[in-house]
Amino acid sequence: MICIALVFIMHLGFSLLEIGLTRSKNTINILFKNVMILMIGILTYTLIGFNLMYPGEDYAGGFFGLHTLGLSLPANGLTGDYFNNQYTFYTDFLFQAMFAATAATIVSGAVAERIKLSAFLIFSIIYVGLIYPITGMWKWGGGFLEELGFYDFAGSTLVHSVGGWAALISIILLGARIGKFKDGITGVIPGHSIPLATVGAFLLWFGWFGFNGGSVLSADPAVTSKVLVTTCLAASAGGMGTFLISWIRHGENDLSMVLNGILGGLVGITAGADVMGVTHAIIIGLIAGILIVFSVALLDRLKLDDPVGAISVHLSCGIWGTLAVGIFGTLAGWHQLLNQIYGIVIVGMFCALTSFIILFILKRTIGLRVSEKEEIEGLDAHEHGLAAYSNYAVNEV
Amino acid sequence: MICIALVFIMHLGFSLLEIGLTRSKNTINILFKNVMILMIGILTYTLIGFNLMYPGEDYAGGFFGLHTLGLSLPANGLTGDYFNNQYTFYTDFLFQAMFAATAATIVSGAVAERIKLSAFLIFSIIYVGLIYPITGMWKWGGGFLEELGFYDFAGSTLVHSVGGWAALISIILLGARIGKFKDGITGVIPGHSIPLATVGAFLLWFGWFGFNGGSVLSADPAVTSKVLVTTCLAASAGGMGTFLISWIRHGENDLSMVLNGILGGLVGITAGADVMGVTHAIIIGLIAGILIVFSVALLDRLKLDDPVGAISVHLSCGIWGTLAVGIFGTLAGWHQLLNQIYGIVIVGMFCALTSFIILFILKRTIGLRVSEKEEIEGLDAHEHGLAAYSNYAVNEV
Amino acid sequence: MICIALVFIMHLGFSLLEIGLTRSKNTINILFKNVMILMIGILTYTLIGFNLMYPGEDYAGGFFGLHTLGLSLPANGLTGDYFNNQYTFYTDFLFQAMFAATAATIVSGAVAERIKLSAFLIFSIIYVGLIYPITGMWKWGGGFLEELGFYDFAGSTLVHSVGGWAALISIILLGARIGKFKDGITGVIPGHSIPLATVGAFLLWFGWFGFNGGSVLSADPAVTSKVLVTTCLAASAGGMGTFLISWIRHGENDLSMVLNGILGGLVGITAGADVMGVTHAIIIGLIAGILIVFSVALLDRLKLDDPVGAISVHLSCGIWGTLAVGIFGTLAGWHQLLNQIYGIVIVGMFCALTSFIILFILKRTIGLRVSEKEEIEGLDAHEHGLAAYSNYAVNEV
Repeated sequence: MICIALVFIMHLGFSLLEIGLTRSKNTINILFKNVMILMIGILTYTLIGFNLMYPGEDYAGGFFGLHTLGLSLPANGLTGDYFNNQYTFYTDFLFQAMFAATAATIVSGAVAERIKLSAFLIFSIIYVGLIYPITGMWKWGGGFLEELGFYDFAGSTLVHSVGGWAALISIILLGARIGKFKDGITGVIPGHSIPLATVGAFLLWFGWFGFNGGSVLSADPAVTSKVLVTTCLAASAGGMGTFLISWIRHGENDLSMVLNGILGGLVGITAGADVMGVTHAIIIGLIAGILIVFSVALLDRLKLDDPVGAISVHLSCGIWGTLAVGIFGTLAGWHQLLNQIYGIVIVGMFCALTSFIILFILKRTIGLRVSEKEEIEGLDAHEHGLAAYSNYAVNEV
Repeated sequence: MICIALVFIMHLGFSLLEIGLTRSKNTINILFKNVMILMIGILTYTLIGFNLMYPGEDYAGGFFGLHTLGLSLPANGLTGDYFNNQYTFYTDFLFQAMFAATAATIVSGAVAERIKLSAFLIFSIIYVGLIYPITGMWKWGGGFLEELGFYDFAGSTLVHSVGGWAALISIILLGARIGKFKDGITGVIPGHSIPLATVGAFLLWFGWFGFNGGSVLSADPAVTSKVLVTTCLAASAGGMGTFLISWIRHGENDLSMVLNGILGGLVGITAGADVMGVTHAIIIGLIAGILIVFSVALLDRLKLDDPVGAISVHLSCGIWGTLAVGIFGTLAGWHQLLNQIYGIVIVGMFCALTSFIILFILKRTIGLRVSEKEEIEGLDAHEHGLAAYSNYAVNEV
Repeated sequence: MICIALVFIMHLGFSLLEIGLTRSKNTINILFKNVMILMIGILTYTLIGFNLMYPGEDYAGGFFGLHTLGLSLPANGLTGDYFNNQYTFYTDFLFQAMFAATAATIVSGAVAERIKLSAFLIFSIIYVGLIYPITGMWKWGGGFLEELGFYDFAGSTLVHSVGGWAALISIILLGARIGKFKDGITGVIPGHSIPLATVGAFLLWFGWFGFNGGSVLSADPAVTSKVLVTTCLAASAGGMGTFLISWIRHGENDLSMVLNGILGGLVGITAGADVMGVTHAIIIGLIAGILIVFSVALLDRLKLDDPVGAISVHLSCGIWGTLAVGIFGTLAGWHQLLNQIYGIVIVGMFCALTSFIILFILKRTIGLRVSEKEEIEGLDAHEHGLAAYSNYAVNEV
């Protein structure tokens, strides 16, 4: 139950990371999106998501099953077939609901500073309400990936990549921010508050204690504490990997890259936090941290504009972490590695396809992108009529 | 015990919400007040509050009972007559002490930017040290409201309305900030940092996990997790209710209103978080969120200036939440509804009367309000001699 | 396990307190240092620190023992000889690792705004990786201070003074910031964001629930909850003590001093949080709060420049708290007091000497201090090439 509170605070972490790494003229917009996502996530998951994800006896094989609409309490308040019996039904529901909204939050960072609020909210409702629980069911709801032996402890693929694929499709369809790629040169658009971004990264790490720790789905102290150790080691190694590469390549002490390295390490360990040893966790984190640097450079070369590095962190490291389960730790082996690849590919194809369809329809109807005037003047002024910061001179009434 | 830490962090949440929604020239003053309230609350509750609230065998009926002064440990370290036996005495004490300071924090938001620091601190000592524990005893200490059957799970009335009534009396006696109501027009005085206000609202929601979750007063996982679900659903529905009304009426995407809607939903569910079902929680939150919008408009029309919306959130939604126990959920019924109304009225009258007396005496002696010069130039410069933010040009030593 | 998360968030608290109380031109540098310390602390503690601190059967008496390099899991996943059996090995390791990094964080605050990043990082690796675990072993690893009867519940000496002594030596070797002591006058260099400093202090108090609560090393609810009560009372009394002295002496309502008073109270109670009663905790906190004011004044008179008051908080109050175990509470007595003094002196001498040697070598080789030009223009621009805050005019692309 404590873990629910920790996962909850990750939403604040994401919000602060995003606003810190973007410009102040779009700050209200980003905060508004993230607050709405959280509320939408909890409500749609109550209405339909939870039942889509855990169809129980109504799952007849295949890609889809739906128990019923709305949240109905089992007579004894305890969990049914597909749930761990030590957990109460309600705890499980709320923990999962907090997860669900995460996928849309990842997209939010990538599309920041140029997406239309209405388009984003409609996309989020559909993606969080339908797509996330369907892929989640494939593994966690007892679906075909579970039967196959695909392993994803706390969601490197099922949470982070699900968000990451949608983020990738979104920025392809949206295009880059004005001024990012000018005359063949990749411009730097620095964030307006690195302190807030740092607070965000700390809160995400803090929340990950709950994200991975809570995914043990029982309070077994031996497993949970091991998961926390692998999580923290991967985070530290991730940040260190990014630092070393940045420093060797450019002699830089780049704080925002190190923060993303930490997050990459966290995403990387998420698929196998319970099956890795101490050394494995450090290696996985280190590689994730290095991967971030090259992933960011690759996106820049492809002229794909991801203001906060969400795709590098969540998609690249999500894929890496899922693969790592087949390479290191107690499950390692060729057979497992193939299962992992299969899961990555099938989830990726489904997410990329569905998010393309939703976004393409939105683009052709209400439009995805704000006007050039609105983008330049800032989304806060146009969509919200409110500035994030007001400076008052002394003596002003 | 974890819940104590969560309720503790609500004080940071309140502080940030308040400074975010007010002007930077009064930021130090608001932070100072909130830090002092927390320390005063813990110390006065140790000295007298806890014994006033839980008089135990020294309660002889009526409105008042006092066990002894100071905190004395029962021989076995466990709780006595009026305490849940699964809880230790110390845990219970500290949890209640963190609650106590909340009432004064609510007042702090409403009176921000114009009250004298000394007057506010004296008021807080008396109100937190005496008034809050006396009304608390009526229900939680085994007093006459408990005997009557009045129900208030975690304090929609006993915490939030107790603070809300004092806030209402305070702003009537204080008057509006200079510039708020000018020439018959209600001016908008925007806050200086919406990001900090958003962090505050997130931390309050986070802390509410402890506030409501901890009020179960035992670690029964089934009840606690249900309470967390109703709490989160009401918060989401509250924010959604405010969003929908603002959007329908004005086409606005107003972040600060949505944040208050979330808080209103949280206050609304607090009285009955353990007796409500999923649908009830959503309805209660939704109505609370809608209520906020009209309550804010009503206060503006009455020329009552509440800079952060504290009265709309804590008093209006506190009353609504207490009534809702008689309308929805397992206790619903005419008899219960009358009990709820009786509790609301009697607590309201007592709080309004006592806070009027204290504040009126302060007004006639040391005065409630800072000078016009001090208000215009900012309380930070005059009461604290320190600015919240210092901007250094590069090259400045 | 929850306590690990709480101690983790103290690192964010330290970071925000430090940047809030210093100038914005050095903000990135301070955040970078603190993020690196955390990662370095976790990784070096894994590699060598934990085994140095808990040598187990390889400890042959004296000052030093080393089990092995790297982290090796006991066969049953549970703890061995020197560990509490109710705790898992991994939980214990991670909790201790989070502590280890704290010592370097304390130094970071004192040396802020003028130390070379490279020198600081090298110092941190050695001090956190070797010195902290060696002194920690003397008591917590079953070493000679434990055998003697020296008592330090959660580290007033073994964490806070260990950091404090190194901080003191550092600022002696470094010298004051340019402009702090000019023409015989002690200048005031105000921090750039008191709100962030306040958030930092709140998070530190929040984290202290875990720091002291977790140090019970078992989930005994009676002891843990008592520890939380003494912790909160000492914090409140500390802040109140500082407030009263500042107010009586200068008529000031100085927020940043009150925040340091709270932290001083927390440091003061840390050595004896489990052996003190309610009244003792209040007295210890109050004296700690008063001590802060005089300690800050003394450092100013000695022309020692500690930008955030780290030495007054962690060293002065760390010594006071350790002494207090011999004066108040269940262990009080002359014999215990002499043991406490012996521990303070021997740890102090070792830390002062070792940190002097490390820092002196660094000063003679790569140098400790940035150039005058770099200090004036800010470390962010020179060491990181990034500004903490970017202000965009509306319409700017």
